[in-house]
Amino acid sequence: MKKIFVVGLGPGNLSQMTNRALEALEKSDVIAGYTVYIDLIKDRFKGTQMISTAMKKEADRCNLAVDEAVKGKTVSMVCSGDAGVYGMAGLMYEIVHARGLDEDVEIEVIPGITAACSGAAVLGAPLIHDFTVISLSDLLTPWELIEKRLECAAVGDFSICLYNPSSIKRYDYLQKACDILLKHREPENVAGYVQNIGREGETGIITDLKTLRDTKVDMFTTVFIGNSKTKNINGKMVTPRGYKEVEGSK
Amino acid sequence: MKKIFVVGLGPGNLSQMTNRALEALEKSDVIAGYTVYIDLIKDRFKGTQMISTAMKKEADRCNLAVDEAVKGKTVSMVCSGDAGVYGMAGLMYEIVHARGLDEDVEIEVIPGITAACSGAAVLGAPLIHDFTVISLSDLLTPWELIEKRLECAAVGDFSICLYNPSSIKRYDYLQKACDILLKHREPENVAGYVQNIGREGETGIITDLKTLRDTKVDMFTTVFIGNSKTKNINGKMVTPRGYKEVEGSK
Ligand SMILES: C[S@@+](CC[C@H](N)C(=O)[O-])C[C@H]1O[C@@H](n2cnc3c(N)ncnc32)[C@H](O)[C@@H]1O
Ligand SMILES: C[S@@+](CC[C@H](N)C(=O)[O-])C[C@H]1O[C@@H](n2cnc3c(N)ncnc32)[C@H](O)[C@@H]1O
Repeated sequence: MKKIFVVGLGPGNLSQMTNRALEALEKSDVIAGYTVYIDLIKDRFKGTQMISTAMKKEADRCNLAVDEAVKGKTVSMVCSGDAGVYGMAGLMYEIVHARGLDEDVEIEVIPGITAACSGAAVLGAPLIHDFTVISLSDLLTPWELIEKRLECAAVGDFSICLYNPSSIKRYDYLQKACDILLKHREPENVAGYVQNIGREGETGIITDLKTLRDTKVDMFTTVFIGNSKTKNINGKMVTPRGYKEVEGSK
Repeated sequence: MKKIFVVGLGPGNLSQMTNRALEALEKSDVIAGYTVYIDLIKDRFKGTQMISTAMKKEADRCNLAVDEAVKGKTVSMVCSGDAGVYGMAGLMYEIVHARGLDEDVEIEVIPGITAACSGAAVLGAPLIHDFTVISLSDLLTPWELIEKRLECAAVGDFSICLYNPSSIKRYDYLQKACDILLKHREPENVAGYVQNIGREGETGIITDLKTLRDTKVDMFTTVFIGNSKTKNINGKMVTPRGYKEVEGSK
């Protein structure tokens, strides 16, 4: 059986990878991934063959990795954060299946820390209770479905974590998303965002929903909107879970 | 400034912890946590003072940790999975604040791999697109709010990940939850669950929503319900993201 690991690298520097992920990379003959992620790890794995491809070529990248596996090489496909949250794990299964290689190539997904969790840790504890994760990218998802999910997340009073909040073409998507949330939530609902999590220039900002609406963020940013009970405690964004012991003191 | 780390250990064995988490534990004079998690790490940190307390004493455990920090010790509070997803990060901020120690005790949350991500990796890629995380425990949350969130998650066609799906008292909660989801989703909607993720006895099962409804799971289980497009590909649970390149082959 040929083997492909799909490996989540965590938010940035190697100290936020797991040993299980490091071990998979050590076992691999070939490491494939988007250029930026290959750059993060190439010094550590000098002898290993690297295949790096540009953004938006996800299917090509998977196909190249499958080609190498078919030749008998152990391959790791690396992703930032978790391989299973807007990562390459799903497409890898789909492509191996589409190529009729289900019985020849085994896929092992190695989880990593996703931006929801690493970003939450920077801000405090915004996702400590029920939450939703929504991507604002409409490259592969109709905008109407994104709107519907935002609406449902707002009505269900979830904490909300937004991935891909912005790009040059989609500069006003965060504003559109906040306008939907503002139909069901107070303008003062605590919100925040973290840029460059785990990387140079990591910056966490805590604000409120109405201010977030008029904020420009870039694509290296993850956005957090608390539920209606989320508080700003001394500059940290904290969603209560409802422990009686601390209720009195609020 | 006194220091408390709130550390996510990941799903089970030490190989799924990050080095950042290991380093925090190494720096600590005291490690506090629920007995089961202390047992996981005590061999590795033999010289370190351990404070382990029974379940359901979360506030006591935080207060003991804060007491040690106030004495000048560096303290780590450990949690399974991620410290910020139904973990101790939020309560720690609340308790430090309630005790008026905001200016004396610094809290650093160190993220870990949460059960949603580690369990998803076992099943395939169920959470690769937008998803919600909901706990079925009504110890601290009114059941009506849990129902409302299930309803919103079903209507929004999110993939859904359920924590705390069951306990001895709440043996029929998963059934009640599935009944709500079945109002909006097909009985054949792909679903699955993983028991003992990253631990001895790890077992992942893929099924459908109507079968899940009549399944008994224990509290060491995380449950996954796909969105309406989620497939069973050769025994793996895969939610498509919509790449054109593989559409034709579906
Ligand atoms: C295609 S998704 C990849 C997500 C990744 N697989 C994960 O689990 O974190 C890219 C989006 O993830 C978020 N993201 C990933 N890494 C980040 C980081 N280091 N800092 C801030 N946001 C990040 C941003 O919202 C970005 O637009
Ligand atoms: C109080 S929550 C703690 C969650 C943890 N902080 C995390 O991020 O994974 C406990 C629930 O998490 C899920 N869980 C945590 N660790 C698990 C594991 N190793 N295997 C299966 N489920 C797990 C189960 O649903 C369990 O009932």
